[in-house]
Amino acid sequence: MDLGLNESFAPMLAEVRRMVQDEIASLDAEYFAEVDIGDRWSLTPRQSEILESLKSRAREKGLWNLWYTGAGGPGLSTVDYAYFAEEMGQAHLAPETFNCNAPDTGNMEVFHKYGSEAMKTAWLTPLMAGEIRSAYLMTEPDVASSDATNIALSCTRDGGDYVLNGEKWWATGAGDPRCAVYIVMVRTGGDDVPKHQRHSMIVVPTDAPGIEKLRAMEVYGDDEAPHGHMHIRFTDVRVPAENMLLGEGRGFEIAQGRLGPGRIHHCMRAIGMAERALRLMCERSLQREAFGKPLAQLGGNFDYIADARMQIEQARLLCLKAAWMMDQGDARAAAPWISQIKVEAPRIALEITDQAVQMFGAMGISQDTPLARQWAHLRTLRLADGPDAVHRRQVARAELRKYTNAPA
Amino acid sequence: MDLGLNESFAPMLAEVRRMVQDEIASLDAEYFAEVDIGDRWSLTPRQSEILESLKSRAREKGLWNLWYTGAGGPGLSTVDYAYFAEEMGQAHLAPETFNCNAPDTGNMEVFHKYGSEAMKTAWLTPLMAGEIRSAYLMTEPDVASSDATNIALSCTRDGGDYVLNGEKWWATGAGDPRCAVYIVMVRTGGDDVPKHQRHSMIVVPTDAPGIEKLRAMEVYGDDEAPHGHMHIRFTDVRVPAENMLLGEGRGFEIAQGRLGPGRIHHCMRAIGMAERALRLMCERSLQREAFGKPLAQLGGNFDYIADARMQIEQARLLCLKAAWMMDQGDARAAAPWISQIKVEAPRIALEITDQAVQMFGAMGISQDTPLARQWAHLRTLRLADGPDAVHRRQVARAELRKYTNAPA
Amino acid sequence: MDLGLNESFAPMLAEVRRMVQDEIASLDAEYFAEVDIGDRWSLTPRQSEILESLKSRAREKGLWNLWYTGAGGPGLSTVDYAYFAEEMGQAHLAPETFNCNAPDTGNMEVFHKYGSEAMKTAWLTPLMAGEIRSAYLMTEPDVASSDATNIALSCTRDGGDYVLNGEKWWATGAGDPRCAVYIVMVRTGGDDVPKHQRHSMIVVPTDAPGIEKLRAMEVYGDDEAPHGHMHIRFTDVRVPAENMLLGEGRGFEIAQGRLGPGRIHHCMRAIGMAERALRLMCERSLQREAFGKPLAQLGGNFDYIADARMQIEQARLLCLKAAWMMDQGDARAAAPWISQIKVEAPRIALEITDQAVQMFGAMGISQDTPLARQWAHLRTLRLADGPDAVHRRQVARAELRKYTNAPA
Amino acid sequence: MDLGLNESFAPMLAEVRRMVQDEIASLDAEYFAEVDIGDRWSLTPRQSEILESLKSRAREKGLWNLWYTGAGGPGLSTVDYAYFAEEMGQAHLAPETFNCNAPDTGNMEVFHKYGSEAMKTAWLTPLMAGEIRSAYLMTEPDVASSDATNIALSCTRDGGDYVLNGEKWWATGAGDPRCAVYIVMVRTGGDDVPKHQRHSMIVVPTDAPGIEKLRAMEVYGDDEAPHGHMHIRFTDVRVPAENMLLGEGRGFEIAQGRLGPGRIHHCMRAIGMAERALRLMCERSLQREAFGKPLAQLGGNFDYIADARMQIEQARLLCLKAAWMMDQGDARAAAPWISQIKVEAPRIALEITDQAVQMFGAMGISQDTPLARQWAHLRTLRLADGPDAVHRRQVARAELRKYTNAPA
Repeated sequence: MDLGLNESFAPMLAEVRRMVQDEIASLDAEYFAEVDIGDRWSLTPRQSEILESLKSRAREKGLWNLWYTGAGGPGLSTVDYAYFAEEMGQAHLAPETFNCNAPDTGNMEVFHKYGSEAMKTAWLTPLMAGEIRSAYLMTEPDVASSDATNIALSCTRDGGDYVLNGEKWWATGAGDPRCAVYIVMVRTGGDDVPKHQRHSMIVVPTDAPGIEKLRAMEVYGDDEAPHGHMHIRFTDVRVPAENMLLGEGRGFEIAQGRLGPGRIHHCMRAIGMAERALRLMCERSLQREAFGKPLAQLGGNFDYIADARMQIEQARLLCLKAAWMMDQGDARAAAPWISQIKVEAPRIALEITDQAVQMFGAMGISQDTPLARQWAHLRTLRLADGPDAVHRRQVARAELRKYTNAPA
Repeated sequence: MDLGLNESFAPMLAEVRRMVQDEIASLDAEYFAEVDIGDRWSLTPRQSEILESLKSRAREKGLWNLWYTGAGGPGLSTVDYAYFAEEMGQAHLAPETFNCNAPDTGNMEVFHKYGSEAMKTAWLTPLMAGEIRSAYLMTEPDVASSDATNIALSCTRDGGDYVLNGEKWWATGAGDPRCAVYIVMVRTGGDDVPKHQRHSMIVVPTDAPGIEKLRAMEVYGDDEAPHGHMHIRFTDVRVPAENMLLGEGRGFEIAQGRLGPGRIHHCMRAIGMAERALRLMCERSLQREAFGKPLAQLGGNFDYIADARMQIEQARLLCLKAAWMMDQGDARAAAPWISQIKVEAPRIALEITDQAVQMFGAMGISQDTPLARQWAHLRTLRLADGPDAVHRRQVARAELRKYTNAPA
Repeated sequence: MDLGLNESFAPMLAEVRRMVQDEIASLDAEYFAEVDIGDRWSLTPRQSEILESLKSRAREKGLWNLWYTGAGGPGLSTVDYAYFAEEMGQAHLAPETFNCNAPDTGNMEVFHKYGSEAMKTAWLTPLMAGEIRSAYLMTEPDVASSDATNIALSCTRDGGDYVLNGEKWWATGAGDPRCAVYIVMVRTGGDDVPKHQRHSMIVVPTDAPGIEKLRAMEVYGDDEAPHGHMHIRFTDVRVPAENMLLGEGRGFEIAQGRLGPGRIHHCMRAIGMAERALRLMCERSLQREAFGKPLAQLGGNFDYIADARMQIEQARLLCLKAAWMMDQGDARAAAPWISQIKVEAPRIALEITDQAVQMFGAMGISQDTPLARQWAHLRTLRLADGPDAVHRRQVARAELRKYTNAPA
Repeated sequence: MDLGLNESFAPMLAEVRRMVQDEIASLDAEYFAEVDIGDRWSLTPRQSEILESLKSRAREKGLWNLWYTGAGGPGLSTVDYAYFAEEMGQAHLAPETFNCNAPDTGNMEVFHKYGSEAMKTAWLTPLMAGEIRSAYLMTEPDVASSDATNIALSCTRDGGDYVLNGEKWWATGAGDPRCAVYIVMVRTGGDDVPKHQRHSMIVVPTDAPGIEKLRAMEVYGDDEAPHGHMHIRFTDVRVPAENMLLGEGRGFEIAQGRLGPGRIHHCMRAIGMAERALRLMCERSLQREAFGKPLAQLGGNFDYIADARMQIEQARLLCLKAAWMMDQGDARAAAPWISQIKVEAPRIALEITDQAVQMFGAMGISQDTPLARQWAHLRTLRLADGPDAVHRRQVARAELRKYTNAPA
């Protein structure tokens, strides 16, 4: 069970770390400041310039599509990628710089595994090139999407087309003007169809008539423009039947294939965020004085620092173990490990970030450190791709199955 | 130790509750929507209309300046007021409706206790009438203000004037166009003066030349316009010597007198927010279904609800006890109790609010419930008026003093 | 809502505190040392002497049956008694000294409320006089007694007698040679009888033929001789029909009436134990030095002390509120409050005791402080009279009932 | 970073697991029952027979001194040994069965690394053969031994001898009649000697005149006879000068060399105990019913099970990482990792054990499961070989050193 980085990737990792810390992190603030200029939902020339120049530099260095563990990719295992993703978690623009950002990575995965040749040409190629963006539409406002069998957006066959009606929200990235395609979870089967075969995944171009972006969902008051988490209405949206992925009723099969890697990538980045928070906490605790001493030496601050270090090491190892399980190729066996880290990584990253906020005093909750924004982002991870409760349930059931043949 | 509401105020409390729930809460969303119209730092006509009509109605009903426990006020004890403040915590606009909002209440308290007749005429009277707003400038960006002896904004005598130079931030309410006056903590004494006599409080009209609002501090991305938490620079700001409160070197004395009630009012409202979060959590858990059951019956949700109820009851009782201690008239004896509730009320309210967010799923972090905004506000309370660490330190020292005469 | 002590009892309380601290606490160690002499399940002459002399002194001072809120008692309300019970929690022998020890108080309550005149003469009078001891037999080894409808000890009518067969365990106090009577929860009704009417309470003299004490249950290795928590087998144990309390099928009614006061008394004492732990922790932290400083000034110790103080104050107030609810006379309304404190008091007392253990280092887990024994005793309270899970369930259901008429 | 077991040891591990579960665990209860027969501080014939027959079988199978990573041992790395130690944690008699029990392993380590040839012949050979037992005397009643520079037992040169005077306590294993030798930390240097060179380690045969076993320290009421944690007085105890290990003033050097492996072995076993607790918890939750359902499906029990699994996985990985660091050969670099797991392994094992106790109800605190005993043992680990606070301090200091050259 080798959880270390393949030695041959060490120089590449060092270069990613250097770029993130020296080139990318410092551009985050400028990028965010541009959001307030003009229409929040377009990219300013400067925003485009920032993104494209970073992407060019990354591509030139061969630091591109690092997430792609398939043939023709850079050759990282999931374990290897964990080390890279952790670095990318430390600056807002870093994942996109290396074409490793959610939800595009997950969507590319779907096209790779389940897409037709036509889809690959139309969507996968430009996505892999970083030329377009995409979104993944799963969650709906009217049902508890934590139980995905509730998903209800209607998709009915009409001649050579499918017609979609209903609403989705939290369509992350759908605000971006470059977003060209949606992968949409829809309901195709009636109540007579077995529960896990009622749903399908279908590909919808974002310019199809009948699509209406109702609003951006806010995350603790932030609309996250221009990326955005959009609330979208479909009214008689029509797409050709060949846009259906794999075939009717195979939505859950695809969702499982897509969500595993996506979940673990989030966790890897969350651990990078936890490291950043701990670093900021330590620096602050050494520089700031109160009552005649550096904060580090006051009260329980040693304990907070020690606990943060211990939590990070454990969560990182668990994340690497889950990645290693995925690399073994048995998705079913890896599933409870992904559920475990999906609960633990956001939990510890949130706690450490919150502790860092407290060490900074009022500055911690403000725009003057990346901590407040990081916290809000991490908070979404306790809900996205399955809330904690659902993952805990998976872990418990897997545990109890060891002792019984009956379903727990 | 009667911690109940004086019976005679029961009808008044019922009317406040009714107004908050039926008239005020529903206007919060409209008020916030107006912030995005035109200049964020002015009030739109509709915003003014909302506020002034609510205030008129409150004043007509005699529900005005309820916080004021002095002569000529409505006659509530601090214990009584706790019950009212808790209700006001349940809608954003409620405290101002009843002229009970921070930081004005604390500033009025200062003018009442320490102000000259001229100050009372100029500032206290219009504040009590709800005609102007005020701010309290304590925290500074360059020093650890948790140890208030670090405060450094320079204030030097020049003939009949004082001249102020330096920066303050987190001047809550200073963004409001109606804000007419600041009470400012300044440093007047040199290193030769005893540590707790180096500081003073001085009154500064907001239109004094040399005052520059640099920016609004953001709270988890929200600038909280038009109220705002402003970062302000003073450059040779000149005020007459009689604007000094009590006299040079008495800043800490005034701060203590001001902060006690202010802290406990925040806590009382925080308990109201915790109640709101629990109510929303319960309603959601009964209405929403997953896996064929209402959420209430899934996993540990009963435990979360039970723990929330137990935490609220205990924190409320502690808050009432601290209020009762204040009503006994011995501020020194009451101080550790205020520190206790200052730690506990935000802690439990944050935890319960976060749990409610989780029960709502992605909706919980969005603009569709008051929970995300409430969480961000509550988070500031772990820092405002002294961070947790300072209050815990006070409580521990008070405890250890029981066993030793030497300073702990 | 007066949660204070009735002033007139202040001198009495002071005397109880003095006796506990000055006279009783110091005898605990001697009493325990005597347990190892001869038969663990008898009292040595010195043990009897210690107990009887303490009891005499208490009775002489009128400090007797303080728990008894009924007519002819000392006249304390439940709120008043909370202050006394807290003091008694601070020495092992204190509750019995004042004839306020479990399970006798609960059993006396049962005889008072539900006993026939014959029972009162036979059992209540000597119990009130401290001449005999009693036990309460509820829990059974073979069923989950947390759901008391599972209780199964068979009790069948045979002419003028009832005949009992089955096993009980955790019969607290049944090891004591002075224990003369059991109150036993039995099953009298078949499956055709409604669930909460199948059980009854019956009075059984401890010398009835067919009673066998199988063994003493150990609490973290301690058999708690000579008091003991006994595992008892009933084989054709025969008692006259008039020993049935109230009548067949009324077992739950009696259990409710008995358990309310019993639960809250445990909690009141637990708060006293928490205070003792905090006191020991503070003293230790001031006396012991490491790394050149008293422990109090190292690491997070200030925080532990502050948190302990804050937890105790809140739990005490909750306990007083629950007591006050009982004093209002509506047992049904008081029930969720008792569940709340039943969860919270042991929880905080355990946590503070454990923290105190840690402050003492290895000495803390040993026989050289009362902390280890106290911890083990407190740990039983998370199970006795209903485990945490059952009480949390009660609190959650009471909360949800506010929002629905349907059963939650 | 390979954290897996070396494949070649897989059959050996399987055999250890089988022996522990099938042969050893079932003898624990019988062994403990024998303690109450006759003198608690001798071994009954049956106790000797149990131990010696288990040891013979282990030795025959080559499952002997598995801990010994040096030349001539079975060849396990520290990482490999972790897997074995975890299995041994699941039965009380298992570590001794395989001659892998504390404190003998640590003492053998000392003789191996620092002992003279004479010492090796006299003590190491019979210890490696399992013929004698040993104790390690560090902690003292009168000083805070968490700061080991406080250690004060006097050891002065007198001709060819050293003479020892003072007291030690918590001498684990010193109650065993087979215990033949002590390794004792003593103070040899005066205040003029640098702080970390004042102490020495010396070898003392247990039959030296002047040694007095004052009493057994109890762990939550258990004297742990016949192994015991003894309180020992030295009065003019005289040993030849060549019994000094390495030379005067090198006590800390030896302590460091000894404690690293010892600490991690405890942690490995603690993880085994956590696994045992989780297994018992799961089995109970499936077998026991209340309110018409197996406990597993009630309240938050799924969450407790899931959290336990997640905590165990993370702690195990951290333990393996610390072991791997030790295997890299840089003790200084490994030290903070050992401190980390020294805090985390007992913490999670205690929490899970306590949760399992709660799942069992009153049975959980009794002698009818191994949980209560296991909890008490685990509780000692938060103090033994350095309390949590000292290890957290080490971790925090290591962290802060990354940001500063000045000592934190």
